[in-house]
Amino acid sequence: MHREEQIKRICAEVLERIRPPAEERRRVEAVIERIIAQLAEQAQVLGIEAKAISVGSTARNTWVRGEADIDIFLMFPVELTEDAFKAQGLALAKSIAHRYEERYAAHPYIHTYVLDAETGTEYEADLVPCFAVADPAALKSAVDRTPFHNRYVQGRIAGREDDVLLLKQFLKVLGIYGSELRRRGFAGYLCELLILHYYSFVELLKNAAQWQYGDRIDLEGRGTYKGEGHDPLIVIDPVDPKRNVAAAVSEYSFSRFIDAAREFLAEPGTDFFELHKDEPMSAAEFTESMRERGTELVLVVFETPDVVEDILFPQLRKAETSVNKVIVRHGFQVYRSDVYAEEGNAFLLFELLVWELPRIKKHIGPPVTSAYHAAKFKEQYRPSHRIFIEDGRYVVEVARRHTDAVSLLKSELRSCSLGKQVRESIAKGYEVLRTEEINVTEGLGSFFREYFRGI
Amino acid sequence: MHREEQIKRICAEVLERIRPPAEERRRVEAVIERIIAQLAEQAQVLGIEAKAISVGSTARNTWVRGEADIDIFLMFPVELTEDAFKAQGLALAKSIAHRYEERYAAHPYIHTYVLDAETGTEYEADLVPCFAVADPAALKSAVDRTPFHNRYVQGRIAGREDDVLLLKQFLKVLGIYGSELRRRGFAGYLCELLILHYYSFVELLKNAAQWQYGDRIDLEGRGTYKGEGHDPLIVIDPVDPKRNVAAAVSEYSFSRFIDAAREFLAEPGTDFFELHKDEPMSAAEFTESMRERGTELVLVVFETPDVVEDILFPQLRKAETSVNKVIVRHGFQVYRSDVYAEEGNAFLLFELLVWELPRIKKHIGPPVTSAYHAAKFKEQYRPSHRIFIEDGRYVVEVARRHTDAVSLLKSELRSCSLGKQVRESIAKGYEVLRTEEINVTEGLGSFFREYFRGI
Repeated sequence: MHREEQIKRICAEVLERIRPPAEERRRVEAVIERIIAQLAEQAQVLGIEAKAISVGSTARNTWVRGEADIDIFLMFPVELTEDAFKAQGLALAKSIAHRYEERYAAHPYIHTYVLDAETGTEYEADLVPCFAVADPAALKSAVDRTPFHNRYVQGRIAGREDDVLLLKQFLKVLGIYGSELRRRGFAGYLCELLILHYYSFVELLKNAAQWQYGDRIDLEGRGTYKGEGHDPLIVIDPVDPKRNVAAAVSEYSFSRFIDAAREFLAEPGTDFFELHKDEPMSAAEFTESMRERGTELVLVVFETPDVVEDILFPQLRKAETSVNKVIVRHGFQVYRSDVYAEEGNAFLLFELLVWELPRIKKHIGPPVTSAYHAAKFKEQYRPSHRIFIEDGRYVVEVARRHTDAVSLLKSELRSCSLGKQVRESIAKGYEVLRTEEINVTEGLGSFFREYFRGI
Repeated sequence: MHREEQIKRICAEVLERIRPPAEERRRVEAVIERIIAQLAEQAQVLGIEAKAISVGSTARNTWVRGEADIDIFLMFPVELTEDAFKAQGLALAKSIAHRYEERYAAHPYIHTYVLDAETGTEYEADLVPCFAVADPAALKSAVDRTPFHNRYVQGRIAGREDDVLLLKQFLKVLGIYGSELRRRGFAGYLCELLILHYYSFVELLKNAAQWQYGDRIDLEGRGTYKGEGHDPLIVIDPVDPKRNVAAAVSEYSFSRFIDAAREFLAEPGTDFFELHKDEPMSAAEFTESMRERGTELVLVVFETPDVVEDILFPQLRKAETSVNKVIVRHGFQVYRSDVYAEEGNAFLLFELLVWELPRIKKHIGPPVTSAYHAAKFKEQYRPSHRIFIEDGRYVVEVARRHTDAVSLLKSELRSCSLGKQVRESIAKGYEVLRTEEINVTEGLGSFFREYFRGI
């Protein structure tokens, strides 16, 4: 069979599975209409001036079957004060919610659960207050752009929704869908823009297989974004030309997508669209893996901070980077590292090549030729230390404070540069475990399975 | 007492001890005269056209009491072929020697022992053939410069011999006298030039205390030497202005001298001129030191090659550098290293911070964006390895060949870049010992004493 034909057949087969059936669409639309009507009614009752609109994948018919997450934006007049905006936004959202959680992103918003009595299905919905700005150039809050994104995509995506679904499912299986995940991946809006630009899922893959760092996609040809050299991929926001929609795409996600695009085109198959949930690694498998590797794991465990994932994961990654630096600065060697979070606990994992060091270390002093600093240095160290000359500098041997990476992290973790919520959680307490102390439970077992597996 | 007065008194006191008494000078001169007369006589007998001259410290009255080493140069016509030169040079030198060794520097020469029957003293003498070139710019061999050096210093040093003696003794105590030593130090001719330039020992120290990298001393103001940026100190050869007499001075010797100059000027004392022979380190002290340090020593032992020290030590240092690189390239960490040689054995010492590593290591592949190389890499590794993506590149985990630095050196030492004679000696066999296998004998004990002591 011709390769193009084969791919077409595979996509059709996958779409049969992931495209929401007409009944699901009808029900989702009905639920959204009901929420918007309730919000309008409550706004009047409460005397709040706000307009609710449906945004996101459920507003654009680009959600994957059975995964409809409803996004409703509550648009407030720009004249409102920040305090009034927050208060009215939450009050209005809560007024129609029976069971909900207050969540925090740029602003607080309400995550609620809506029962469709007719089918017995429960939908999750985010009710997000924003300012109804006249132009995306005049944002008052980061979420104010969303209604513009919605309008842009709604007007153009008709007829290509299937390609968006294929892309989302493909990315989900790779673990790089959504900017909120552990790997900073491709957000829904970005998926839609990529399909709008490349026309179809298959054309996108063919192009992505050849992507280079800094490739620039500019649908409206008006981009003024200046961040070149930082982001692997640049996709100019059509509604805000100085912004890169792909700024959150990590180097990993960028590379992973390129690799998978090539793999799929070379050997297409429906398995690229099937989430295979591996068995969590067992304690015995874990022990055997570590025996073979010979490395030492150091696992930092603390309570998962109560923030949304797209705040949590950037903070965990930041912590990973700064702890990495501290480990290296103290002379140990990191082989790999990663982060993980589940309901209760968040984890920073460091796999070390060198985790124990001798007691002595060098303290490098001034060049011998610097008479002034030389005198100071000798005055300070001569009474208690042996002084050497190495590479033209004075050197003394001093005691290493931490001869073991675990003791280092136990005492220095709080002095690392950490994001606000992670810092607060660590301040409440944390544990540092070494390989033999790690208890491979359900969640950690899945994490380690993936950690050891590779692509 | 005024500091200047104190220094003067100390120098006078030291000179009483190190200046050769009149009787010693007379005897040395008599022995030299006799050797030269014998050489002239034998040249005639053998029909060899050559003229013997006295050079070096014994020709310039700049030897330290009891340490007269006689240097006689046999000057041959420049027209002589290389083969005839070598053959006649050795024949003439051997003709007057009763007990001698053939040694090798640029050319072979004769090291012999001459008994002064009158006092019963045995002197060592080098009989070195050279070409009697008309100009140092027209050298045929590296030693041809020596007669010009001799003439230059002889004509100028009169009255300042004492300062040369103080300098030589000062450097000897620091372990940085002579280019032939373990630390590449200050040769006799360089000492004389430094005194000629700075006028006296004390003036030299005052200036050296302020030396900076690349300081340039040019007695005749005709220097064309272009090696700036490489040598810590530049002293233009007055008889060959494109040459740096101090090229052999290592960064260590340069720094050590600056440091000691400051120390002496700040707290002058006769102890700066007294060789204190420390007790060799005992096995118990060695064990205790290593327990405290926590590092691991790796000692490479092989038979000392049969070459003069100023060929041997540069080769040992070269071996040290290239073995260091190999150790680091394999992921281990060197804390310090050094070399040592005694009659029978030569040693390369590496003190390691990291000497054992886990079995796995990363093998870094091409960037994911390089489609061609990516395909090659995956084709090669996918059948047998797990592939990861890290920093935008493919990575596989492979087995580390050497998980221990001792096993590394046991198998890789011969593939290091080594000088000719060291390479030949190592090819005959070598041992690699770790801390607990090192047997601290007499010579090694002194070496380790110094190694652990610092300045």
